[in-house]
Amino acid sequence: MTENINRQIRLAGRPIGLPKDSDWELAEEVMPTPEPGQVVVRNRFLSVDPAMRGWMNDRKTYVPPLPLGAVMRALTVGEVIESENSDFAPGDPVAGLGGVQTFALGDGRDLQKIDLSLAPLPVWLDTLGIAGLTAYCGLLEVGEPKEGDTVLVSGAAGSVGAHVGQIAKIKGCRAIGIAGGAKKCSYLMEQLGFDAAIDYKDEKLSDGLKRACPDGIDIYFDNVGGDTLNTALARINVGARVVICGAISQYNATDISAGPSAYINLLGRRSRMQGFIYFDYRSKWPTMQKDLAEWRTTGKISTEHDIAQGDVDIFPDTLLRLFRGDNFGNAYFQMNQRRGKRWSASKAFLRPVLSRPNLTVITNAHSRRILVESGGDKKRATGI
Amino acid sequence: MTENINRQIRLAGRPIGLPKDSDWELAEEVMPTPEPGQVVVRNRFLSVDPAMRGWMNDRKTYVPPLPLGAVMRALTVGEVIESENSDFAPGDPVAGLGGVQTFALGDGRDLQKIDLSLAPLPVWLDTLGIAGLTAYCGLLEVGEPKEGDTVLVSGAAGSVGAHVGQIAKIKGCRAIGIAGGAKKCSYLMEQLGFDAAIDYKDEKLSDGLKRACPDGIDIYFDNVGGDTLNTALARINVGARVVICGAISQYNATDISAGPSAYINLLGRRSRMQGFIYFDYRSKWPTMQKDLAEWRTTGKISTEHDIAQGDVDIFPDTLLRLFRGDNFGNAYFQMNQRRGKRWSASKAFLRPVLSRPNLTVITNAHSRRILVESGGDKKRATGI
Repeated sequence: MTENINRQIRLAGRPIGLPKDSDWELAEEVMPTPEPGQVVVRNRFLSVDPAMRGWMNDRKTYVPPLPLGAVMRALTVGEVIESENSDFAPGDPVAGLGGVQTFALGDGRDLQKIDLSLAPLPVWLDTLGIAGLTAYCGLLEVGEPKEGDTVLVSGAAGSVGAHVGQIAKIKGCRAIGIAGGAKKCSYLMEQLGFDAAIDYKDEKLSDGLKRACPDGIDIYFDNVGGDTLNTALARINVGARVVICGAISQYNATDISAGPSAYINLLGRRSRMQGFIYFDYRSKWPTMQKDLAEWRTTGKISTEHDIAQGDVDIFPDTLLRLFRGDNFGNAYFQMNQRRGKRWSASKAFLRPVLSRPNLTVITNAHSRRILVESGGDKKRATGI
Repeated sequence: MTENINRQIRLAGRPIGLPKDSDWELAEEVMPTPEPGQVVVRNRFLSVDPAMRGWMNDRKTYVPPLPLGAVMRALTVGEVIESENSDFAPGDPVAGLGGVQTFALGDGRDLQKIDLSLAPLPVWLDTLGIAGLTAYCGLLEVGEPKEGDTVLVSGAAGSVGAHVGQIAKIKGCRAIGIAGGAKKCSYLMEQLGFDAAIDYKDEKLSDGLKRACPDGIDIYFDNVGGDTLNTALARINVGARVVICGAISQYNATDISAGPSAYINLLGRRSRMQGFIYFDYRSKWPTMQKDLAEWRTTGKISTEHDIAQGDVDIFPDTLLRLFRGDNFGNAYFQMNQRRGKRWSASKAFLRPVLSRPNLTVITNAHSRRILVESGGDKKRATGI
């Protein structure tokens, strides 16, 4: 019977700083059944992204804030298992925003049917997914590189950064990466073909930039924000493009009063700093994905994966690893629902769920069965 | 004989914070004589601009830093009085970078011949000069306004800001100005046709923005930087353009560690922040100037002037007035060389010149006569 239980990680609190156990709750529902127009997808892999931290705030960004109690938003790939929508058939491999749960129910509008002849399933979360598309949109559409440009990228060993450097090389630019640790830096240069790498844990960034970018910076692709952004801004060339992709150093910061004072160089150096979201380029994705698939097949783009395997209950820890910088390459996990074992989470992780009496009774969107129940001292979850 | 003395204000020191008397020196030379290819211009008006503060630093921006001892850089209008350059004839009205001096010698490359049928001489320092062109380039070329956009401008009662708001109205936008004081704010709304004004001395800026920009900001034209920029960034719309024109709040700051932390909204709201220099659009100036002249003639653009009159020695005080916010409208001054009266500067202002023995002997570029001499207790300048 556990086969058709939909295990979910829901948002239970708004984190201050790093997400804590009490910001999450684990819930179970019956597998959803599609109504006319709807599709049910079994999620197989989900991408663990820095952007997730922003999604947890009660602040509108490019997507509405996730309501408390909602299933955590996540990019997923999987296959259609039931469909009442003529655009999809059982067995179709799809990518979408399936969330941190075993099964996703939707109307298909957020789903992209994917072509496994271009690349296997998990690659659609990586080179042909958020990482590759983000790098492609940010570098090529926003950054507008010209041959010979010096392209600097921070978080260079991360999923997006690694793609940025490699696409910069494909476009005839010099690629310089900023990363933490010798292992990541040698990976950038030896495996990914970056021209230089700056280990910010070993070298003062301003010194590293002087060494690695003697002629200044034409494009800075920023994944980290904070001092790194400010130091890079101090070295931009006239006409530079600063692409704001993320600010991982700031996502968990509770005091972000210090912005980049060197923004003023945008004036003297007639440069621009621009943010973007890869969603906005959706109509161009198929073309971009063809390019990316070709670059991957011909070995011009390679990636490292940091794969966690398990049930959804390991998601919170997997996200924390990302913020600690413990991951190496694109972090995602393969959702292997454990058979015959419910509540696989650790006690520590379960505690907050059980301590919230108002959340112990949960009804799904179709007001079907109540699935999580509690009573008295002994609380337990009941799968159907 | 004083008629052909070239009085100059030179840079004597690098200011820390506001320029002090000791950062300037007053010198006299004989009127220059053109060599083949050269032109001599008698400066009639010079523009007193916030950008001057940046020019005094020993830091390369869009122009090289001014060397110590050099004549202070300034935008000027005047007429050609001698020419060995076939492009110019005596009597030609011209605009250029003539500097804070009575006569400017140059090869003509920086000079623009101006058409007095479009507008009288001083207007070429204002609506048809740096203020109007800066507003035009920044708003129309960088900001790319669309009809119905909300355009916010800081330093709105200043020379550039007043033009920005009026051009925004011409383009069918809502124009909102930030200025200090009720007088400036009523000027914006009653004389310049702004839709709303925020008096930052009277109202918390974030409250003012909420009131005046209920639907957010599509274009923010920033002249002041600092907290104003940060507060505006917090209210930008998706796809907003933040035009960085200046940062007058920061020019004299000795501690600029706090940049705009809200830059991160550029990401979530897919916006760009871009600096520009009106010099870069030089090839388009004639077209822009025709538009500006027409708007001025038809009353769509009006300006207030803050004119100081006198010899170059009053320049340092005029610049300080600007940084104190005492000016109202475009600040410039009309250079009226006093006849028969040398060293018109106050004693306080002369002191630094006289206390620098190494600067009491000055030779001009052609190694002509030595013009400033000193000796013993009694120091005096000798005109030739």
